[in-house]
Parts: sequence; structure tokens; C-alpha cells
Amino acid sequence: MIPHQTPRHLSAPAASDRGALGAAFRDVRETSLHLAARLSPEDMVVQSMPDASPTKWHLAHTTWFFETFVLERFEPDHAPFNEAFRVLFNSYYHKVGAQHPRPRRGILTRPALDEVMRYRAAIDERVMALLDHANEETLGAIAPILVVGLHHEQQHQELILTDAKHLLACSPLRPAYEPRGHDSGCTPGELRWTRCAGGLVEIGADGASPGDDPATDAFCYDNESPRHRVFLEPFDIADRLVTNAEMLAFIDDGGYTRPDHWLDEGWAFVNERGVGAPLYWRRDGATWLEFTLSGERALDPAEPVTHVSFFEADALARWLGARLPTEQEWEHACATLPVRGNLLDDALFHPIAAPADPDTPIHQAFGDCWEWTGSQYRPYPGYAPPRGAIGEYNGKFMSNKFVLRGGSCATPRSHIRSTYRNFFPPAESRWQFTGLRLAKDAS
Amino acid sequence: MIPHQTPRHLSAPAASDRGALGAAFRDVRETSLHLAARLSPEDMVVQSMPDASPTKWHLAHTTWFFETFVLERFEPDHAPFNEAFRVLFNSYYHKVGAQHPRPRRGILTRPALDEVMRYRAAIDERVMALLDHANEETLGAIAPILVVGLHHEQQHQELILTDAKHLLACSPLRPAYEPRGHDSGCTPGELRWTRCAGGLVEIGADGASPGDDPATDAFCYDNESPRHRVFLEPFDIADRLVTNAEMLAFIDDGGYTRPDHWLDEGWAFVNERGVGAPLYWRRDGATWLEFTLSGERALDPAEPVTHVSFFEADALARWLGARLPTEQEWEHACATLPVRGNLLDDALFHPIAAPADPDTPIHQAFGDCWEWTGSQYRPYPGYAPPRGAIGEYNGKFMSNKFVLRGGSCATPRSHIRSTYRNFFPPAESRWQFTGLRLAKDAS
Amino acid sequence: MIPHQTPRHLSAPAASDRGALGAAFRDVRETSLHLAARLSPEDMVVQSMPDASPTKWHLAHTTWFFETFVLERFEPDHAPFNEAFRVLFNSYYHKVGAQHPRPRRGILTRPALDEVMRYRAAIDERVMALLDHANEETLGAIAPILVVGLHHEQQHQELILTDAKHLLACSPLRPAYEPRGHDSGCTPGELRWTRCAGGLVEIGADGASPGDDPATDAFCYDNESPRHRVFLEPFDIADRLVTNAEMLAFIDDGGYTRPDHWLDEGWAFVNERGVGAPLYWRRDGATWLEFTLSGERALDPAEPVTHVSFFEADALARWLGARLPTEQEWEHACATLPVRGNLLDDALFHPIAAPADPDTPIHQAFGDCWEWTGSQYRPYPGYAPPRGAIGEYNGKFMSNKFVLRGGSCATPRSHIRSTYRNFFPPAESRWQFTGLRLAKDAS
Amino acid sequence: MIPHQTPRHLSAPAASDRGALGAAFRDVRETSLHLAARLSPEDMVVQSMPDASPTKWHLAHTTWFFETFVLERFEPDHAPFNEAFRVLFNSYYHKVGAQHPRPRRGILTRPALDEVMRYRAAIDERVMALLDHANEETLGAIAPILVVGLHHEQQHQELILTDAKHLLACSPLRPAYEPRGHDSGCTPGELRWTRCAGGLVEIGADGASPGDDPATDAFCYDNESPRHRVFLEPFDIADRLVTNAEMLAFIDDGGYTRPDHWLDEGWAFVNERGVGAPLYWRRDGATWLEFTLSGERALDPAEPVTHVSFFEADALARWLGARLPTEQEWEHACATLPVRGNLLDDALFHPIAAPADPDTPIHQAFGDCWEWTGSQYRPYPGYAPPRGAIGEYNGKFMSNKFVLRGGSCATPRSHIRSTYRNFFPPAESRWQFTGLRLAKDAS
Repeated sequence: MIPHQTPRHLSAPAASDRGALGAAFRDVRETSLHLAARLSPEDMVVQSMPDASPTKWHLAHTTWFFETFVLERFEPDHAPFNEAFRVLFNSYYHKVGAQHPRPRRGILTRPALDEVMRYRAAIDERVMALLDHANEETLGAIAPILVVGLHHEQQHQELILTDAKHLLACSPLRPAYEPRGHDSGCTPGELRWTRCAGGLVEIGADGASPGDDPATDAFCYDNESPRHRVFLEPFDIADRLVTNAEMLAFIDDGGYTRPDHWLDEGWAFVNERGVGAPLYWRRDGATWLEFTLSGERALDPAEPVTHVSFFEADALARWLGARLPTEQEWEHACATLPVRGNLLDDALFHPIAAPADPDTPIHQAFGDCWEWTGSQYRPYPGYAPPRGAIGEYNGKFMSNKFVLRGGSCATPRSHIRSTYRNFFPPAESRWQFTGLRLAKDAS
Repeated sequence: MIPHQTPRHLSAPAASDRGALGAAFRDVRETSLHLAARLSPEDMVVQSMPDASPTKWHLAHTTWFFETFVLERFEPDHAPFNEAFRVLFNSYYHKVGAQHPRPRRGILTRPALDEVMRYRAAIDERVMALLDHANEETLGAIAPILVVGLHHEQQHQELILTDAKHLLACSPLRPAYEPRGHDSGCTPGELRWTRCAGGLVEIGADGASPGDDPATDAFCYDNESPRHRVFLEPFDIADRLVTNAEMLAFIDDGGYTRPDHWLDEGWAFVNERGVGAPLYWRRDGATWLEFTLSGERALDPAEPVTHVSFFEADALARWLGARLPTEQEWEHACATLPVRGNLLDDALFHPIAAPADPDTPIHQAFGDCWEWTGSQYRPYPGYAPPRGAIGEYNGKFMSNKFVLRGGSCATPRSHIRSTYRNFFPPAESRWQFTGLRLAKDAS
Repeated sequence: MIPHQTPRHLSAPAASDRGALGAAFRDVRETSLHLAARLSPEDMVVQSMPDASPTKWHLAHTTWFFETFVLERFEPDHAPFNEAFRVLFNSYYHKVGAQHPRPRRGILTRPALDEVMRYRAAIDERVMALLDHANEETLGAIAPILVVGLHHEQQHQELILTDAKHLLACSPLRPAYEPRGHDSGCTPGELRWTRCAGGLVEIGADGASPGDDPATDAFCYDNESPRHRVFLEPFDIADRLVTNAEMLAFIDDGGYTRPDHWLDEGWAFVNERGVGAPLYWRRDGATWLEFTLSGERALDPAEPVTHVSFFEADALARWLGARLPTEQEWEHACATLPVRGNLLDDALFHPIAAPADPDTPIHQAFGDCWEWTGSQYRPYPGYAPPRGAIGEYNGKFMSNKFVLRGGSCATPRSHIRSTYRNFFPPAESRWQFTGLRLAKDAS
Repeated sequence: MIPHQTPRHLSAPAASDRGALGAAFRDVRETSLHLAARLSPEDMVVQSMPDASPTKWHLAHTTWFFETFVLERFEPDHAPFNEAFRVLFNSYYHKVGAQHPRPRRGILTRPALDEVMRYRAAIDERVMALLDHANEETLGAIAPILVVGLHHEQQHQELILTDAKHLLACSPLRPAYEPRGHDSGCTPGELRWTRCAGGLVEIGADGASPGDDPATDAFCYDNESPRHRVFLEPFDIADRLVTNAEMLAFIDDGGYTRPDHWLDEGWAFVNERGVGAPLYWRRDGATWLEFTLSGERALDPAEPVTHVSFFEADALARWLGARLPTEQEWEHACATLPVRGNLLDDALFHPIAAPADPDTPIHQAFGDCWEWTGSQYRPYPGYAPPRGAIGEYNGKFMSNKFVLRGGSCATPRSHIRSTYRNFFPPAESRWQFTGLRLAKDAS
């Protein structure tokens, strides 16, 4: 369990609220350590594929973020904790300087985990001291970037889980991250459609980027802005996520072996990689097993299908006679729903079945799985990234990705919102908790 | 020159108009042979890269299209010209059956060019006989698919030129396709901006897909439909294409060597491939040379820059303080312009400089170079591909491509229109005649 | 048929014998054209894999050899036929200068075949003029290098056939090079062993390298020298080549699917490439077909197995309870046999079955297939390559190759001898006419 | 230091000598732990390249060898320590069964180091119990295979050092394995040549393979047998190893940038990989640094050059006007020298300079660096691998490797002898302690 770790204040605080800022900082930083605590030093150093990073690297990089963007700018008489870390733990910020190559993060047996823990403790102490002693004006300048750093660390909390899952799944021993599994006990009902009338609607967050939305005092990333108008035709959206049972029917119908339902690049992808089921599924005679963070177990047909690429989600939706929603449709349909669901804070680490509850028009909007949309990730009209290195955070990735919405069982509750735009390439994304919800044109 | 080859009627004819249909068919088929006539049998068989196809393959595949989609369905007592061709010259239609692998098109020394020419002649004769003898009802069924086949062949006419250019450019001897070059004699003026008010506008073609737009009797592809509403913020669009002079300034400023203006994938692309200039540019001491279909010659700063990837277009636009238009912005701005410009029919085979004419708000909208837009290629709201194998024409490519608009110096005049959506991946597209026009938010 | 093309004098002539030298030159040069005459210009330009070269390239490169090593040095007022050819048709002679990249030989649609034919004719005329007019001293200097050039061209004659076979086999149409096939009508008998006593024996040719062996007036390459002593244990050598029937038994026993008999690198090779039979074999239901230069036909069990890598030859020999001979064993066993057999001059272009003739201790020593030996290709004791670019001919390839002996059905009769050392890497060699003969330790 | 760890009895003991066998077993097993003790659990799990294995894997695999080949066969009521280890820690023995893929050894964060240590302790205890309680006949059967297991573990001791060196060298922090370095203080003199008369000589070990040489009671591997006659021409061999100073002169002469001295595959290797100096050399302005197991330090010109591929050794020898000795020449020249030198037992972990001592005809024959020979690794005449899985130990690697002789600073003293044949591919071998000694034909 990761109880009581949810940061209470991840919105941009008033400059005078040093206490709230410090408390949020402590909460987020401790949650990362809680997540890592189930892993050994050996688990934390190995990189199982170029897209995944070692836990130790995540722990160091999130610390580097605060050292580089907060302490380096605001700490009086700043001296780096270790000069070499500036390069070792820079992910992709060209304006900060050189980067240790991403596919080589796993050869960093040094610094040892112990030293990375000392690094975290030292930077934490210095950040807290800075928060304590900065004057109001400085604090006002620090607060927005510190809050970005906290959201940044939350993203890496999700990656700690997905990257560890990938590593453990590579092991022939199939070890569990957290042996205690979970079963929702629910059986989802027949899929129901919710009608949305569309029209000229507003999408996106109002905040200046990156950061706080002055109107609502809520944090948002730069890529969620500006709020703008789009015209939507009427559409229907499903009340729940697509399930393993539906994926099984697709497989049994030869879905992965016939080109009929696939985008051309998707068909090439499944053939070149020999993909015939979601990642982490394994057929054992007549039954399907699924590797979860609680180890390998029998596949539960009631649960949402997860660990599928965009291409699989797109083909499955088409086979089911529907399509993926656009990101605008998703946001419009879910804009007013409360942020509730199976999230990181629940410490289940796996999607669970939706209840058969016909009175709720949309289940599972938040948590369980990220939901693929049919929208490629491009800037909103009028979008501009912030100045400086922090401007590399989101904008430069706006090609050949698709947008996902809603968060997953590995997303902290205080991190997600209806305007949130996650993005991954359509093929190389299966180790994330990705799933789908159906939509269709209103007939 | 390719005079008098422009098909007079590429719109979907009335079923009774056999003569117009036959005349259009002859025109398009002859144009392909005219384009090939400048090449030797050896030039026509070699494949210079997996994305390019040999001329001989283009000549055969376009013939295969008519044999497969017209004769096979409508010819009484149909017998294939050669059984093996069904596989050899199928490009990507899974529903027709197996395909000879695309990267291996260049090993097809057999059938020889002579036999492909006999194939063309035989199919032409049989199609013409079918047009002569079909009853009105059959003719009504044939006409739309025949017209698709003609537009399809026109696309391959463009590819014959771009693929031959790539092949000839690979040769250390740098031979010309058509030695007679051309110079527009123009010097483009300062870039001027044209303001578009935006608002709720209509985009796309009204036609049933694929094919004819009953309201206007004009042909369109399925991917241009349905016509639909979008909301556009006000924007400015440039009066002319970006020039070689502007690209030279970008290069001289270190544009290709600093990550500042690049999308992340674009920066990886130029570094992994060692890209430092548009394709076909070569630095010779202090001067730049450009390989054209008339051979290698000094770069003309007044001409539009061409043979750039989306990533280069995007970075260059950003460096120029602007951005690419979205495909909706482009279409809205150009919707009412006449289809005029430097097109295949002009037989110049290279973009030319725009005149400095301040009274024309938008130059070069059609012809010269395809214009990269900032829009990834996705289906319009309500889009549905046609049934059957012909449904594989456009829809299955709707991932990880960007839309280009306006046609090029290698596009037949009767093939292009303001709603036309061309699409290529953002990196692997430089051998096409690709360029860009700037846009920006209205301030 | 290629009758009457066998050069009468490929040994190094006395300097005064201008006529014999000229006649040999004409013979060899004409044979190359005869071999090419069965191919179209399109067949001659395409490169089916990096290891194979287009026929047109072979025709030009062998001409380049004479231009570069003979005319450039000895012709008064020498001017190159075409400056660009110096690079285009240089294979691997660093000391001559830059080389067009080997895997890109197939993009050379220009110069056209016609121009290459003109190149051949012009160089032939100039070489003949030089032979006519050179004084005795110059002729003495020219003769050895001219003879190397003729043997060099004979090697490329074999490659013209093996490379064309590879290209034609790639075609789904499986066209024949020479439709008229051949059947020896023989059925080989049970394998018989010939005992060789071994001891301290002499191996190799006496000639100065590259070139003539003054003692015997016979040509040899540098890598066959110097003649030297080796000690051989007694051994048995098979009277005939291993047959297709024996390979079929190996396949039926699961030979390709169990690691038992394979070298480690061989096992990796067959698994990574999915190799399960000799190259050009294809299973069609219950029968095996073989692609030959006369087209695809039923596999003849009596014929020698060919188109096998060293790794397959080594595994098959081990499965048959034997081993490959060393190159010294082979040469010692075959040193006194006459150069007779199924060679290029017989124009069968395929190995044929050995007669069941118990009175002949060793059949098929020359011709049919090159015979893999168990010896890696390394220099003989005291070996030194000649000075200058010609020294790059053989010596620099002495790593990671295995030696083959005896020539094949594609080797000109005047080109082969018992001391001849052919060499190929153990895996990437299957498109050559490679086979094997068994040996074992004398028990 | 690794003092007192040298096993006293690694020859095949008389069956009755339980005590000597047990003592040797303990010594060898403890030495491995001593070598690992300088590394952290994180250092021991990571795999820096496919050819290198994690230390933890080495520790487990050497244990697996005893469990599989000794306990499984001889232990009454044998039960595996952990079923999964049979696959996880099998290196390449197909007859034992499946193997965890070599390039994936580094993802094995589980079993944890602690469990591997328990594995070692448990197997050690069971082997010692077996030695104590086996009857004489069983002990006689166990002894040879146990001794192979000890030599096997000694090979892995060398690999622990070379693989750890590679890993540490990958780290931007360049950490030392053993900070205390060493300097021999010697300056080697001018190279002197020792003449060897050659003739018909004997090479190889007499032992049945694998194992004990009954005549001399000394252990040998199967690949060193049988002893046999070879004829050698007279030759000269250098008195010492080639030095860093000589390599520096080669580099300064452009040795790596001109093709003149290279084998063709070597030239391709250095160009494709961008090799311009031995592995672990780094130019820092005007000086050269070398990474050693004691960290990075200034290059010592007096030391033997090491970490060179065969291709570099071959080119350097040629540039120095000499060549590499054949393995037969090396063995003949060194056959009677005592096994003395800078070996693992000296715990210097780096080659040292030879003394300038003109009275010793051959220095450094054992230890310092493995010496490349010009011989590809092939079976001796009459060689046969042992039956069963142990037969996979050596014989199946006999292609495309070159033989190295004499051991290195990472080789245990009791492991090396003059007949010992080490083997590596000519390119992918630079992370080993490889060097060279010159030879030439007697003039």
C-alpha cells in the first residue's frame, strides 16, 4: 500500500503558502521511495530495453530536475552535488547540455544506489531550506517550477512501475513486484453507449504554460493550453473500457492474423514483431496467463484489456464495429466527471473490472488504463512552449505520437485531470498501462 | 514537353459518355509512356531504394489496376494476361491476394520491358473494347472505378519522375532525365502575409468515396470526404513558397547543427542520417549545386526550396519565426483559387521562382512543390472507406503521416484540387517534390 | 554451348610468342561475351545481393583490369577511355584509388550496356595494338600481368554464371539461363575409400608470384606459392563427391534441426537464416525441386550436392561419419590427376553424377563442384604478395575463409589445377557451385 | 592480492588422493569469490555487451557446471538446487538442454546475489561430501570431470576480470576495480630475435581428451591433443612482446588510417567501428590515457600493448616488418620454458614491461598478454571431442577463430601451459588481454 502519500497540494500554491509547497514536495518525494522499496539494488540498476529506465536512474533524474531547474537558479552559492550528474541524469534537455545516452542508462552501476539515496536526501534538504528562507519574490519565482518538478516526478512514478514490470516480466522466474494481488469482484455488463451532442465546444486548459491556471488555481502542462473552440459532430461513447473478453474474441476470430482491420503500419508491426496478443499475455495450452505486478496469473476476462499498442486498439475497435474517440471527443465527454477511479494511490497496480452499473454513463474515465484516442499529438491552436530548457518538456515530441487520456492504475490521483494529454508512439508503447474505450458516429 | 496529353475529362462522366471516358483513358495511358520514353530499359528496371519503384514496375502496376479492378469484374470470359502478374504487380491490396515484396521490385528483370509494353497494349485494347460494348448499366458501374484508375495512374506518373530522379542522382555520372532546363526569370519579392479570418468553415469534398461528387461532377478521393465543419482561429498565410535563399540562411546560421528549432524526432533524423541540406544539394567549395531532372547545376536562390522532409520544413518555419499551416487552414485559404501553376503538363520538371506580384495574395498554391502542413493524416469526421479491395487505397495509411497540399511540378493538372490530401511520413519523403509555405497566428 | 572458346595458351608465354598471347587474349575476352549473350540488358544491370555483381559490371571490371594494369603502364600516350570508370569499375584495389561501393553496383544503369561494349572493344583493340607493337623487353614486362588479367577474367566468367543464377532464382518466374539441360545418365556407386599414406610431402606451386612457374611454364597465383613441405598422417579420401541422395538422408534425419553435428557458428547460421536445405532447393509437397541454370526441375539424387556452405558441408560430413579433407590432403591426393571433368567448356552449367567406376580411385576431382576443405585460408610458409596494387589480389583476404579445391562446372578448363586455392567465407558462399568430398583418418 | 589461492593440484590426481582433490576444489572456488569481492551487487548483475557476462552469472554458471556434470551424475538421490537454474546458467551445452539467451544474461536481477552465494555454498558442500564418501571407483570417475570443472572455473576467473573491466570502462565515472596499480620499473631493450631451426617437430599434448595426460600426469584440454608431427621451416621469434611505444609509432605513422598493412576484413572492421587505437586508449590533447583495472592513467610506452584485435596485431606486425608466429612456431619455441610471469596470482591485473635482459632468449612467454598467432583455430590431425555434453566444450568453436598462446595477467598460474590453445574471433576480442610477439622467416 502507498497510503497517505498523496500530495495534498499539487496545484500552484499562492506564493505565501510555503508550508503547503513543502508538504507537497515531501509527499511526492517519499512516494517515489515507497515505490522503489519493493525492489533490490540489482532490480534498480538494470535496463530491460532502451525505452525503459532503471529505477535508480528515475530516482536520480527526478532529483537532478530539482537541482538543475530550482537550486541552480535560486540557491545562493550553489555548488553541484556531483559535477558528473549533470550529464548522467539529464534525460533530453539539450539546452542544459550533453546527455548520457538513453539506451546506456543500464550500465551505470556507479553511482551506487546508496549514493543516489544520499543525492536525494541532500537535494531534498537543500530544497526545503530554500523554501524556508527564500523571500516572497523568490518564492513566487520558485513555486511554478517546483510544482512542475513535482508533476514531473509523478510521471516518473508511473514509469518506475511500468519499467519494473517490464524488467520482471523478462525474467524466466517471473517474480512479483507486490505479491498481494487484487480482484474487483465485478462483472462488467453489456456495453452501453452515451450520446454526446457535440457542436462548438471548448477544449483545453486555461493556464499559462507550463503551470498554473489562474482561473481555477489548478496545475496544467503547457501542451493542454490554450483553451480553444472546436466543432464536434454528435457521437456516442462507451460506458466502460474494452475488456479482455472482447480481446479474446478478437484473437479467436483470427484478428491478429488477417489484415482486414489493421492500419497498414499496424499490420507491418504485428508481423515484423510476431505480435499475437497484448504484451504480458502468454498462452499455456488452452488457457491464457497474464503477467501482472503481482506475478503471473490466469487472465481475467472481466478486466479491461491493457498493454496494447495504438495499432491493436485501433484494429480491435474496428473489429468491434466502432472506432476510438478523438481526444476532443474524450475530453468533452469526460470534462465534468470527478477524478475517481483505480489510481496509483489505491496500490492495486493493475486495472480492475468495471461494475455493471447502468446509471453511471461513463465508468473508468480516470485510472485503470490510459485510453488511446484517434488523435495524433499536435499542438493546440495558439500553443507556444515556455522559454528556456523547460520548453523542451512537451512541445518537441509533437510528431508521430497518439494522445492517451485518463490516467491508469499507476498514475497518482493528484496528477491526472480531464484536460491531461499523455502521448506515445503507436507501436512502441505496449509496456505502458494502455487500453481503450469505444466511440462511434451518432447515427 | 508533354503537350496535348492532358486528359480532358477526368471527372466522373455521365454513363452515356463513352467517348469522353475513352479519350481520357487514352490520354492518361499515353502520358505514362511519354514520361518513360526518356529512359533506357536499364534505367526502368533498377530500384534505387525500397521506397522507390522501377519505371517498368509503375507501367505494369497501373495496367494491373485496370486489369484487376475493371476487366476481372466486367469483362465477359475474362482470362488473365499472365497469372503471375496478379502477384508481381499488386502493390498493397491484401484483399486481392499476395504481393511481391516492395523492396524486391528491382530484381524483376523478367518480364522484360518489351513484355510489359505488350501487357499495356493488350489491356488498353481490352478496356477500350469493354467501353465500346458494355451496356449502359455496366458502363455506369465501370465508369467510377475506371476514373479512379486514371487518377491512380496519374499518381504513378508523378512517382515515375521522382523515382527516376532518385535513381539518376545515385549515379556518380549524374545523368539528366531531360537536358533542357528552365528558368522562370522571376525574382520573388519580400514575403507578404495574407490574413484569413477563420471561424466556423467547411472543409473537404462532398463526393461519395471514392469518386464522384454528384453536386459538382468533380472527382475526389474517399479521404477528402465528407465535407464537414471545423472552427479556425484567425491566421496569416504567406503569399509564396519558402525559397532556397531562406534555406541557405538557415544553413548558414547552423540550423542543421543545433537542436533549438527541431522536433525531437527530427533532430534524431538529421543526426542519424547525417542530413545537413535538402536532398540533392551538394556543396562544392563555396557554392551549392543542386541535382535536377536536367542534371546538376548551380543552386538558384530564387526558387522554392524542395526535397525537404516534414522535419526540415517544420524547423525552417520555426527558425523563420512562423509555423506550417494546418491542412484546414491551407484548404480554407486556397479553396477558391484557380488550378494554375507549374504542373506536369508544363514539362519543366522543377519548381520555379514566384513572380514578385503584390496584387496576388497567394502564389504557387498549385504546382511547383507539395506544401507540408502541420496536420497528421487522419480520417475526417464521418469518414468511411469504400467496401472491397479498393477500400485499401487511402484509409489504411492514416497513421504517422503528414498531409501535403497543392501538387507539384510533377503533378498532372487534371489531378490536383484544393481538397486533395497527399500524405507522406515526416522523414522518409525527401525524394518527393516537397516544400513549404509559412503561416502564423493572427496577432 | 561454348565450344572452341577455350584459350589455348594461358600459361605464361615466352616473350617472343606475341601470337599465342594475342590468341589467348581474344579467346578469353570472347568467352565472356558468349556467356553474357544469353542475358538481356535488364538482366545484366541488376544486383540481386551485395555479394553478387551485375554482368555488365563484370564485363566492365575485367576490361578495367587490362586498362589499369596493362595500358596505363605500358601504352605510349595513354589516355583513359573514361575518367569516371577508374572509380566505377575498381573492385577493391586501394592502391589504385577510390572504389564505387560494392553493394551499389546495381544502381549503375549508366554507362549503358552499349557503352560498356564499346569500352570492351576499344580496350581490346588497344591491347592488341600494344601486343603487336611493343618491343621484346616491353612485351616481357607485359606478358605476366596480361596473363594474370586473363585468369582474372576467367574467375569473373564463373561469377557471371553464379551471379546470374542467383538473380534468376530470385525471380518468381524462375527463368532459365540456358533452357537445354543435361543428364549424365550415370548412377554413382557405393562410396569407396582411397588410402593415402601421407608422410613428409610437398605442397604448392613453384612459381614466383603472381605468375609463372619457371620450372613447368605453368601459371599459378601468388597464394599457391611457395612450394613447401608438410607432414601428413595417413588418411582415406572418397572416390566421388557427396550426392544429393546423401543430403536428403541428412535432411530426413533432422540434420538441419538438431545441433548435434554442427559447428557452433554453423548452428547459429542455419537458425538465424532459417536454412533447412541447400540453396536453390525447394520442397513442393513430397518432392524436392532444384533451381538450375536450365530452370527449376526435380532434384536428381545421383548428382553431387551443391550450393552448400562450409558449415553444411562440415555437418553433413560429420553425420556421414567422416570429415572434410584438409587442403593439403586434397592436393596430395589429386596432384597427379589429369585436369578432366565437367567444366565451363562443357557448357552444362550444372554438376553431373559420377559414373560407378571402381577402377578409378578418384572421380570428379576437377569440375562439377568446388570441394570444401577443412582448412582455413592462410598464407603458406614463406608467402609474400607481389609489390604494388596487384599484391592486393589474394593476400589481403587471408582471414575467416575456407579453402575450396578442384573447380566447378562454371570454371574454365584452362583456369584450374591441383594447386589452385579458391576461398570463401564459411557461411556467405552458398551461391557458388560448392560441394564436398569425404575424408577420414586412416584407421 | 590473491595470495595463497593458487590451487596446488590441478593436474588429474590419482583416484586415491581425495585430499588433494578437495583442496584444489576449495582453492579454486575461493579464488572466484576473492575476485568478485571488489565489486558491488549492482556491478555484478549488469552486462555491458553481449560478449561479456555479469559476474553473478559467472559465479552461478561455474557452480552449475559442478552441479550438472558431477552431482547430477554421481550424487545419490540427487535433487537440483533450483530447477530453473538448469536453463538460466547453462552457457552453450545443447545436450544439457535449453539455454537462457546469452545477450540477456544481464536482465537476471533474480536470483539475487545472495541466492547465488547460497547456491555456491550448497553445491560446494555437496561436492565435498561426495568427495568424502565416494568409493574408489566412483572417485576415479569423478576426478577427471571435477578437474575439468576447476579449469573451467579458472577460465571464468579471467572472464570475471575482463568483463568487469569492460563494464567499468563503460562508466563515465571510470571507476577502478583495484585502486592500487603497479609499475614494473623496467624498460625493455631493443627487440632481439631468437632463431629456431624448425624441421619435423612434435606439437600438442598427449592426453586423452578432455583431461589428463597419463604420461606426464598433467591436465590438458581435448583441443591440445593428440600430440603430432608438423614440419616447420626455420624462423626467428622476438624475445619480448610488442610494446605500447611501437603501437604509438604505428598510430603516428597513420597506421589505422591507411589500408596498406591491413587484411581486408581488418580494414573494414576498423572503418566500420571507427577504431583508431587499442581498446581502452583515449587521447587527451597531446597525451594518451589508458583505462586499467586500477582506473585511467597515462599510457606507459614500456608496457606490452594489449586489448588489440587479431586484425590490429596482424597489421602492426606487418608494419614492423615482421609477422605473427604460427601457433606451432610459438609452441615449439616456448615448449621448454618454465611457467613463470605476470599471472593472475600476482594480482597486478595489468601487463608489465619486460626487463632488458639479453641473456634470456624469450621473455613474457607466460602471463602479461595472450599472444595472437597467425593460425586459425582448427582441430589437430586425429582430434576427436569427448562423448556427451562435455564434448561441446572446445570442438564446436573451430571456425573463424585465431589461436592465442601463453596466458595473461588475468590467467591463473596453474591454468596455463605451452600447449594451451586459447581462441577468439579476429575482431570481437579486444576486451581480452590480447597482445602480440613478432616472428619472421629465417633469412
